[in-house]
Amino acid sequence: MQNFIFQSPTKFIFGKETEYKVGKEVKRYTNKVLFHYGGGSIKKSGLYDRVVKSLQEEGIEFVELSGVQPNPRLSMVRKGIQICKKEEIFFILAVGGGSVIDSAKAIAAGMCYAGDVWDLFEGKAKLSQALPIGVILTLPATGSEASNSTVITNEEGWYKKGYHSDLIRPKFAIMNPELTFTLPSYQTASGVSDIMAHVMERYFTNEPNVDFTDRLCEATLKCMIKNLPIALKNPKDYAARAEIMWAGTIAHNGLLGTGRVEDWASHKIEHELSAIYDVTHGAGLAVIFPAWMKYVYKNNIGKFAQFAVRVWDIEPDFDDLEGTILKAIQKTKNFFQQCGCPTTLKELNIPEDRLEEMSEKCTQKGPIGGLVKLYKEDVLNIYHLAQ
Amino acid sequence: MQNFIFQSPTKFIFGKETEYKVGKEVKRYTNKVLFHYGGGSIKKSGLYDRVVKSLQEEGIEFVELSGVQPNPRLSMVRKGIQICKKEEIFFILAVGGGSVIDSAKAIAAGMCYAGDVWDLFEGKAKLSQALPIGVILTLPATGSEASNSTVITNEEGWYKKGYHSDLIRPKFAIMNPELTFTLPSYQTASGVSDIMAHVMERYFTNEPNVDFTDRLCEATLKCMIKNLPIALKNPKDYAARAEIMWAGTIAHNGLLGTGRVEDWASHKIEHELSAIYDVTHGAGLAVIFPAWMKYVYKNNIGKFAQFAVRVWDIEPDFDDLEGTILKAIQKTKNFFQQCGCPTTLKELNIPEDRLEEMSEKCTQKGPIGGLVKLYKEDVLNIYHLAQ
Repeated sequence: MQNFIFQSPTKFIFGKETEYKVGKEVKRYTNKVLFHYGGGSIKKSGLYDRVVKSLQEEGIEFVELSGVQPNPRLSMVRKGIQICKKEEIFFILAVGGGSVIDSAKAIAAGMCYAGDVWDLFEGKAKLSQALPIGVILTLPATGSEASNSTVITNEEGWYKKGYHSDLIRPKFAIMNPELTFTLPSYQTASGVSDIMAHVMERYFTNEPNVDFTDRLCEATLKCMIKNLPIALKNPKDYAARAEIMWAGTIAHNGLLGTGRVEDWASHKIEHELSAIYDVTHGAGLAVIFPAWMKYVYKNNIGKFAQFAVRVWDIEPDFDDLEGTILKAIQKTKNFFQQCGCPTTLKELNIPEDRLEEMSEKCTQKGPIGGLVKLYKEDVLNIYHLAQ
Repeated sequence: MQNFIFQSPTKFIFGKETEYKVGKEVKRYTNKVLFHYGGGSIKKSGLYDRVVKSLQEEGIEFVELSGVQPNPRLSMVRKGIQICKKEEIFFILAVGGGSVIDSAKAIAAGMCYAGDVWDLFEGKAKLSQALPIGVILTLPATGSEASNSTVITNEEGWYKKGYHSDLIRPKFAIMNPELTFTLPSYQTASGVSDIMAHVMERYFTNEPNVDFTDRLCEATLKCMIKNLPIALKNPKDYAARAEIMWAGTIAHNGLLGTGRVEDWASHKIEHELSAIYDVTHGAGLAVIFPAWMKYVYKNNIGKFAQFAVRVWDIEPDFDDLEGTILKAIQKTKNFFQQCGCPTTLKELNIPEDRLEEMSEKCTQKGPIGGLVKLYKEDVLNIYHLAQ
């Protein structure tokens, strides 16, 4: 186990009708917020009205900035910063899924940096502070409600990059599983694919002696495998929705990665897809992760065999551990498939012509991956395996 | 799953040689601390000198208050408050195990209350703030390094009571598993018994639909069952010590109890033991918990069968689930026994004569326990089962 520092200070307010508390929570910080959200879904569901009412009851002024798209854009972040500067707003309230939260985080960081906010994503600058943000989560997937990261797409060149800092962890996250009842199946399944990927990016490590976090990872994966089909069958199953929502947060607040070298190659490989083709991140991960597993499993037979036995309950064949592992990879792929996720690039309508370019972009700063170092050729091979 | 609020803001600084960072961490808050510790063990180990050096390097003044005993005393807390008031100290640095940390928490709370600090433990007063505290942990057991609770023994009448508030969660916890290499076997095993009890107090619930936290609890228990024997066999096994230390924190920072009705009867039943006979808390729990299980398991056959199968890998006998459960209870008891913990009151040299008085005290504010309500008679029966 490696040395680590872990701090997840976010206050989680979880359960039915918790969105009514947003005004009171915001009030602890400010009397004026940027109310940041995506499209019209929060208006359709009535959530918008409930938020407005709760803010008004506490006398909190707000300026709206809506229209955040999936794979949130740099232009929107810049717009948010402009508005906050002009209106003297020092708190961002994000109501939505990971895209809205990531956009809010980027605005919160950009507000505390004199230069252009993209510098932060390019690693050209470090911050000593960021504006506080609060969240009402409507889509369990990215774990952004508790994580220290934001991923933004720069439309000039379609670069998708992450910025990581404990400064941007939300102050509070209001999480009502009922708000996810109306999610389409595809969003639900893609969300869980993303959650499982967050766990697996940490799980597959060569770091020895990580028994506790291994088991926490397995617990989280098993919980998703059990509950996603329930939520798909009955979208209003509160229990299943709640399990997915809470596990989605713990999957990515950093706990499961403590003391470990994490991988993150699959995320980077997927980012290139969704930057160009604007596919749903979790759907892209359902395509990439099994291909990545096939390509790398021989580098750590023990860990992949443990995955097969403990996560998928496969009886290990000690004469053929690779066979055991391949069964687990197939089970992973089948699971995503049965839940309505794509598992090939074809299904995502991604042609072959730009795979080389994407492999190039993905590795332009050097090889990727903690378990195995992957170079351009490797990434291209994984794209081909995923076709 | 029930609605919940969860916040564990403590910064965990985990790993080898992390105690050298204490000066820098304290410096974020203050230039003067109460340096609170127990007996001479931190002097023998050299930890005392390293702490002093680190504080001095950052120019941090300190006043020492040593002598905290196991089952920390109210008189010591009052003394700490006096010193802090006189010396104008507004930060407590606790270096030790749960007793020292609990004592520090009580001082931190008492400093922000005009009346007598015991009022807080009697539920007569509420706080709106407490002094910040920092921790260097030397004994993984109570989880006090991250929890919101402190348990103090009032020598006048030997009452042992807890006070719970998010205000007293430590700001930082420095956790170096190497500091636990010199722990005697009995302390190590009792510590793990306490850790496992913290998990089981949450695990055994009638609350339905708590799949995620059930699995996290099972993960934590399995990790302890695997690693305690390793640490006992080779006290300098860093990996096993690290697993125990980190799991001990997560066992009690509140995460595993989110959304659940918790039990806590066994802790209360044990508190009466250790208040009078000053037994090691974890050792007392190793005696009480299996007895409690035997007494209550019929109230939730499903949950206890799950415990047998998932934690102890017992093949379930569906024609005799009670038999399956009794095997698990026996395995739990055997595990504690094999690790050197007592499992009967006799071994703790506790005579029969005051069991009735303890049962009375334990339930004087009404029945105890979240899984099953236990009255005086029930508690007495459990003491008898534990003989």
